[in-house]
Amino acid sequence: MRIASGGMQDPADDDTFEGDSEDEASVRAANRAFYDAFEARDLDAMSDVWEHADRVSCTHPGWRTLHGWGAVSGSWFALFGGPSPLQFILTDEVVCVAGDAAWVTVDENLISADGGGTVAAVNLFLRSPAGWRLVSHHGSAVAPQA
Amino acid sequence: MRIASGGMQDPADDDTFEGDSEDEASVRAANRAFYDAFEARDLDAMSDVWEHADRVSCTHPGWRTLHGWGAVSGSWFALFGGPSPLQFILTDEVVCVAGDAAWVTVDENLISADGGGTVAAVNLFLRSPAGWRLVSHHGSAVAPQA
Repeated sequence: MRIASGGMQDPADDDTFEGDSEDEASVRAANRAFYDAFEARDLDAMSDVWEHADRVSCTHPGWRTLHGWGAVSGSWFALFGGPSPLQFILTDEVVCVAGDAAWVTVDENLISADGGGTVAAVNLFLRSPAGWRLVSHHGSAVAPQA
Repeated sequence: MRIASGGMQDPADDDTFEGDSEDEASVRAANRAFYDAFEARDLDAMSDVWEHADRVSCTHPGWRTLHGWGAVSGSWFALFGGPSPLQFILTDEVVCVAGDAAWVTVDENLISADGGGTVAAVNLFLRSPAGWRLVSHHGSAVAPQA
C-alpha cells in the first residue's frame, strides 16, 4: 500500500476537528492496518483490526450491508480467496476523533489485474482497552465521470 | 417515507449492543428526520439534522466524498433541485449507540419516476447539547444481483 502524501489532509491543522494528535495518529495507524491486511490478504491481521461483535457492519462496493463479525469475517475470507489481489493508493485520508469514536474517510485507488478504479470509503473506529477497533466499513465505487 | 416493519431489527433485543433504549430512540428519530428531510426536499430540515462543521462528510452513491458542511449542504441543494423526487421504504435499520457516538445502517429502497433500486447507507451521529447530529452519511447502490 502506498500513501499519496500530496492528497492528504491533516485534521490537526484545522482547529474545528476534535481529538488530540496522539489519538489521530493511533486511528490513522489502525486505518492503515486495515488496508495492509486487505492488501496482504491476511485474515489474522484483518481479524485484529475489527471488533468481534454483532454490531459491526461492512458494506463492500455494490454489496448489501453485512452485519456481525461472523458475516463480515466470512466476506473477507471470500474476497481473499478471489483471483485478483488488490493494491491501493490511498488519497484524501481524513481522520476525525470525537471522544471514544473516530472515523476516517479515504479514497481507495485500486490497482488490480482487472483494471483500476476509485472506491470512496468511510471507516468507523471505537476506542477499546486494546486500542481502536473497526466497527463499520463502507466502500462504494466512484463513478468515472464524478 | 414508509418504514417496513417486517425488515427491521431492534438492537435493544440484543444485549451485545450498547446504549440504552432512550438513546436508541433518539438516534432513530434523528435518522428518520434525515430521511424525512430528504424525501420532502426540505433544506431547512436537512440543515437541522447535520452538524455544521468542517469535519462532516457525505458520500452520495457513485460520488466522491464531500467534506465540510458547505460542500455537503450544496449537494443537497443540487439534489433537491433535480427532476426526480425520491421516496423511500427503509428496511433493515440497525441503530448502534456507543457513548456519545451512534451509527445507523439502513437500506434505502428507492421508489422514483426513474425506477427503483436499493441504496445501502451508514449514518454516523454524534451527541451534542442540542441532540444527535449527523456527521457522516455514506450511501451506495446495491448491485441488482447482490
